[in-house]
Amino acid sequence: MASTSRTPEVAGLLERFARGDRRALARALTWIENQQPGFEQLLHATHSGLGRAFRVGVTGPPGAGKSTLTEKFALLCRRHDQKVGILAVDPSSPFTGGALLGDRIRMQDLTLDEGAFIRSMASRGRLGGLATTSLEAADLLEAFGFDVVIHETVGVGQTERDIVSAADTTVVVLVPESGDAVQTMKAGLMEIADVFVVNKADRPGAENLERALTTTLGLKPHDGRDWAPPIVRTVAVEGKGIEELAAAIDAHRSHCYESGASTAKQRARSADRVRDLVARRVDAHVWEWGGGEEILERALDRIRDGDATPYSVADEIVAAVGLDSRSARPGTEQEERG
Amino acid sequence: MASTSRTPEVAGLLERFARGDRRALARALTWIENQQPGFEQLLHATHSGLGRAFRVGVTGPPGAGKSTLTEKFALLCRRHDQKVGILAVDPSSPFTGGALLGDRIRMQDLTLDEGAFIRSMASRGRLGGLATTSLEAADLLEAFGFDVVIHETVGVGQTERDIVSAADTTVVVLVPESGDAVQTMKAGLMEIADVFVVNKADRPGAENLERALTTTLGLKPHDGRDWAPPIVRTVAVEGKGIEELAAAIDAHRSHCYESGASTAKQRARSADRVRDLVARRVDAHVWEWGGGEEILERALDRIRDGDATPYSVADEIVAAVGLDSRSARPGTEQEERG
Repeated sequence: MASTSRTPEVAGLLERFARGDRRALARALTWIENQQPGFEQLLHATHSGLGRAFRVGVTGPPGAGKSTLTEKFALLCRRHDQKVGILAVDPSSPFTGGALLGDRIRMQDLTLDEGAFIRSMASRGRLGGLATTSLEAADLLEAFGFDVVIHETVGVGQTERDIVSAADTTVVVLVPESGDAVQTMKAGLMEIADVFVVNKADRPGAENLERALTTTLGLKPHDGRDWAPPIVRTVAVEGKGIEELAAAIDAHRSHCYESGASTAKQRARSADRVRDLVARRVDAHVWEWGGGEEILERALDRIRDGDATPYSVADEIVAAVGLDSRSARPGTEQEERG
Repeated sequence: MASTSRTPEVAGLLERFARGDRRALARALTWIENQQPGFEQLLHATHSGLGRAFRVGVTGPPGAGKSTLTEKFALLCRRHDQKVGILAVDPSSPFTGGALLGDRIRMQDLTLDEGAFIRSMASRGRLGGLATTSLEAADLLEAFGFDVVIHETVGVGQTERDIVSAADTTVVVLVPESGDAVQTMKAGLMEIADVFVVNKADRPGAENLERALTTTLGLKPHDGRDWAPPIVRTVAVEGKGIEELAAAIDAHRSHCYESGASTAKQRARSADRVRDLVARRVDAHVWEWGGGEEILERALDRIRDGDATPYSVADEIVAAVGLDSRSARPGTEQEERG
């Protein structure tokens, strides 16, 4: 089914979605989460609704207080009459999951608010599915009409970093105890941070952490960008520093618009999405429809017995699904056929 | 070029490689690192030399003493007349690189030893290249005849975890200061650890860390496996605890052979490699030869202007490279053509 085609079911859901039916939004998010047939048609059809919301990524180690901070920031947005959608992505396995879900329960003030929407997503299988699915869910919230879309996740893996780094502004939340970890995280969280939050800043070590951050950032220019990530101290549970955080996010937002970074980021985001979608389709083509899985399964014994190698088997699979690399070079039959 | 074909250059390098020429090994590793034409032919041809070496993955946060520990363990292997190959993968960018490289210099005793070989690899571009390339380099060391192949890397990202988790035994190195981080790392390093090392165990906090590990492991059965990762205390710079580490690694090795886990792991490793290779080929097909890059570049303006969406563009690209998903379903022309 091409992305542009619409079944009656898709059309019906779209109609309710366009009317602002929150249950239709919830249903559509489930479609995306399960990659249910028709979900790409939904996303294609709602794509024209993008480009209006501001996206904030919130990440940091477990226990940093991301959920509380996200809630307080969301409540502040609501006081300014901005509609807020929140997506929490739990990177842990189904067996250890539930931590973020539990945090959701605390967001009582938001769950009863028509101008807010909260959704937790569990991680899915391999093959880069999680990052794309999660970004597609954010698209849907944006298309539904939320002014601010917040993506919250534990910053432990590449997938989670991919998710938050797709935001317009990425907030990295640390706690005084993170001091030792700053060196470790340098290569990871550091390069995606647009704003640092030192949460639980009333605890000992807040100043040390701030100094460690300043030193680290001072030593290494921030990716050649002309934005120096500010450090905001908060005590989220008491609502302290939330206005300052909002101001820092706003400053980064203005900076991005003025420097043209927003446009460039939007373009890069589109390109990344296309690449992810192509990979998803090609993957399904090779492994589900093309028979790659059966060839691989039969070949494993031959590899074990020394009658084949992963290299010759990869050749076989690529040829079997009609992708023999030689036939795709310009000027050959594959090129002319298209 | 199919994996099974051999150019005179490949044949020449293979001949020197088979004679045990270390310069041929170094050259072959460079081919792999640069994905130079012919590198897959090399790997295909040397694949029959696999299955003999024991592979140890060493990972942990920066500053945990991985390099020193690796060196001491390698020296112990040498005293038992085992030939040791070491691959160090630096996950940092070219601009921040050199840390692991610097560590290499300390391994003086090994670099002058004909029975040892040390190689640092810098990380490469996107698209899962690093993990596969790095595992291919380990294959080459194994095929060259090393009895033990050690893969050392900083455990910060998914790629690095992929590398070490492909080992027969994965050693996670922590230091007393890692105590706070244990909770954070749970989802990541914890699930890949076969052996824990508390290095710099003469520092305060070693007992706390060990208790934190025991609690964490006790709370969560280790992936349903029947192996409980032992915790070994070391002071690597003084050579303390290295015999105990070797004993723990040996115990895990025996356990894997007896339980059949080795065979299963070898099979899974082959399957993973085939998948990675297919992805590498398909990616090159779509983006390099198939013209996907040009279509994408032209489409970005249309997406910005609302005349296309990433979904319709992905459809276009998949169709343009001869992979229209419908034509690959069983029973259609694509299937019959093959």
